[in-house]
Amino acid sequence: VTDVQAAPPTTSRTEAFSDAVIAIAITLLVLEIRVPDVGPHQSLSHALWELWPKYATFAVSFLTIGVMWVNHHALFERIGRIDRRLMFINLVLLMTIAFVPFPTAVFGDYIDDPNNGRVAAVLYGTNMLLIGLGFLAMWWRLLGHPELRAGGFDDAGVRQSIRRTLPGPIAYVVAIGVSFVSAPAALVLYGAVVAYFSVGQISRFAN
Amino acid sequence: VTDVQAAPPTTSRTEAFSDAVIAIAITLLVLEIRVPDVGPHQSLSHALWELWPKYATFAVSFLTIGVMWVNHHALFERIGRIDRRLMFINLVLLMTIAFVPFPTAVFGDYIDDPNNGRVAAVLYGTNMLLIGLGFLAMWWRLLGHPELRAGGFDDAGVRQSIRRTLPGPIAYVVAIGVSFVSAPAALVLYGAVVAYFSVGQISRFAN
Amino acid sequence: VTDVQAAPPTTSRTEAFSDAVIAIAITLLVLEIRVPDVGPHQSLSHALWELWPKYATFAVSFLTIGVMWVNHHALFERIGRIDRRLMFINLVLLMTIAFVPFPTAVFGDYIDDPNNGRVAAVLYGTNMLLIGLGFLAMWWRLLGHPELRAGGFDDAGVRQSIRRTLPGPIAYVVAIGVSFVSAPAALVLYGAVVAYFSVGQISRFAN
Amino acid sequence: VTDVQAAPPTTSRTEAFSDAVIAIAITLLVLEIRVPDVGPHQSLSHALWELWPKYATFAVSFLTIGVMWVNHHALFERIGRIDRRLMFINLVLLMTIAFVPFPTAVFGDYIDDPNNGRVAAVLYGTNMLLIGLGFLAMWWRLLGHPELRAGGFDDAGVRQSIRRTLPGPIAYVVAIGVSFVSAPAALVLYGAVVAYFSVGQISRFAN
Repeated sequence: VTDVQAAPPTTSRTEAFSDAVIAIAITLLVLEIRVPDVGPHQSLSHALWELWPKYATFAVSFLTIGVMWVNHHALFERIGRIDRRLMFINLVLLMTIAFVPFPTAVFGDYIDDPNNGRVAAVLYGTNMLLIGLGFLAMWWRLLGHPELRAGGFDDAGVRQSIRRTLPGPIAYVVAIGVSFVSAPAALVLYGAVVAYFSVGQISRFAN
Repeated sequence: VTDVQAAPPTTSRTEAFSDAVIAIAITLLVLEIRVPDVGPHQSLSHALWELWPKYATFAVSFLTIGVMWVNHHALFERIGRIDRRLMFINLVLLMTIAFVPFPTAVFGDYIDDPNNGRVAAVLYGTNMLLIGLGFLAMWWRLLGHPELRAGGFDDAGVRQSIRRTLPGPIAYVVAIGVSFVSAPAALVLYGAVVAYFSVGQISRFAN
Repeated sequence: VTDVQAAPPTTSRTEAFSDAVIAIAITLLVLEIRVPDVGPHQSLSHALWELWPKYATFAVSFLTIGVMWVNHHALFERIGRIDRRLMFINLVLLMTIAFVPFPTAVFGDYIDDPNNGRVAAVLYGTNMLLIGLGFLAMWWRLLGHPELRAGGFDDAGVRQSIRRTLPGPIAYVVAIGVSFVSAPAALVLYGAVVAYFSVGQISRFAN
Repeated sequence: VTDVQAAPPTTSRTEAFSDAVIAIAITLLVLEIRVPDVGPHQSLSHALWELWPKYATFAVSFLTIGVMWVNHHALFERIGRIDRRLMFINLVLLMTIAFVPFPTAVFGDYIDDPNNGRVAAVLYGTNMLLIGLGFLAMWWRLLGHPELRAGGFDDAGVRQSIRRTLPGPIAYVVAIGVSFVSAPAALVLYGAVVAYFSVGQISRFAN
């Protein structure tokens, strides 16, 4: 660690680094699905079928991180200059995204455990909530520092972005509440959130 | 997850992100080959020899993902503008490519299991079929939306691309059928498919 | 390995390669946190709580590598031309950064072991010290070779960069000393070092 | 897999993809060093010390892949246009590089096994030999196809590059021979090869 006084990396380099971390995290998800160990007189197809929670949590996490990548890009389009504090907030945001494979693995392993499934669902939702708060913190920093914004992005624009970011964390707070009742219901809700933010937007914008 | 209304990432950023995911997935394949555990009085060379299905499935998956990377690039050369729906289809396509290490590991572990090998071969082929369908879905979206295409790429061009994409999924449907009969034969067929699409094209184009 | 006499890769390609290695190392950290294995009548929440050293070492290593990425960028901003020796020193520096997931995993696993925790803390600090020495070696090479520097970066500038790099290795020597006494205290110190170099600088520069 | 007739990816995209695969392979090496499992009354420092073959093979493989990255860049500097066959040869070359973590793990685990160490050393050297042959195949393709070369690179230049590439494979053939006698001696030789090609060149070029 060095006490560097030079200018922090440019916006484009920081975005490239962020893209790399997000691309790696999304691709590492598959490593958490382990090959089942069955003997020649046991049924592999049955064992593969039993892994459905692993496939489901893989898909939900993959699509969620994918949507976050789109959001991260939209955020950086609004950033004209990056300072050290913004860089640090972004690093913490990346840390919460890079952490996703762990709660995904826990959730997939314990979702059908009657006692522990709900704990796993809460862990998963808490990670997602922290990511949403990280995005909010980025926008918040832009609100107080117009000099960091890209040209033509005024206070009203930042406030609008914050209002549009809020449904994510709110949805995850609700999903965490549902997690305390039922882990499978929470998984459905986590899937619905990402479906709403991707497919939902598609029907509005892409046609 | 955020309700972002800004423009989706550009074609070049999306392609760079896709390239990264494909490069990571192709390189993670090696992690599914575990070091054999033999004592000092057992033969490591024998144990390494027994791992031939892991090497074979590694090679077939590596080359297949490599050819898919070439195809993905050729596809994006035809895309002039990306919208949210195209981005979502691409994300699902990337998800099926990022999933490849899992069926590859299952196939390599079970190919010589008399009962379960065929199940593993079907799983492998199904993943490859889904990737082919993902490519078809991308082309299909371009067929209905000329405004998303790169300049000079007309309906006839898209239809030709679709016709050229079809042999892949068809070959995988055949290979899945063979998988129900013999897992090693299916592996040979999966290898033949990638050999046809890479070496075969080479003899036509590169000389 | 080849005896290539062509020019070594350009600064920008070397920096892109370095960025990739650093982004991968930082994202692989999560793989060292294994899903706890508890039965349906045991408490997953307790087991997840017990993993706190894994979360803490993950966070400290993630932020430390993140700050190193910023420093690496600041270093390469000062490099105008790269020669083979600088490239080799950079490769060794990258090797020590790519190694971080291992000491991080050892530290997280053994920090609360009364006998072995201190050994794990020493290993961790030694890795960090080596990274700091790698940065120093890069600056040192620039000191003796003005022709490798970016325009307008004189001897005084390099000496200032060396003076600003020194606190890092010195802090890690102190932290290694503390490691011989208490592993948890060493972890707090490792966290304080990264907090000083990131948050500390923020309060000076970003407001 | 698709029958694409569009132009293959450009040289720069192929090089970026290759860089990514090489950067990932080099960074994955650390995952093959597993945390030792010792109880509170056993010595972690002793267990860490016993892992020296893992550190040594990690370092040799890291530096070897690093030098190969430099060579790969020098090769692509000589390529003006890429055709499908060159792309396929490059893909096979990348496959052999992406495979390195496996022989590295085997070598590190078995080097001090009196019976199996030599087998592990032969496996390691064979992988390295195949990479060298892959580089030779790339140059060979350029020899027969001047239209693929970058401007100003004539037959004599390609022949010189081939002559300079040959010492690598030859050294690995020798090292494989030594592997049949002694695994530790082979490791020293593998380290000497990479030291010769990196440090050796440095003393000639960088001063």
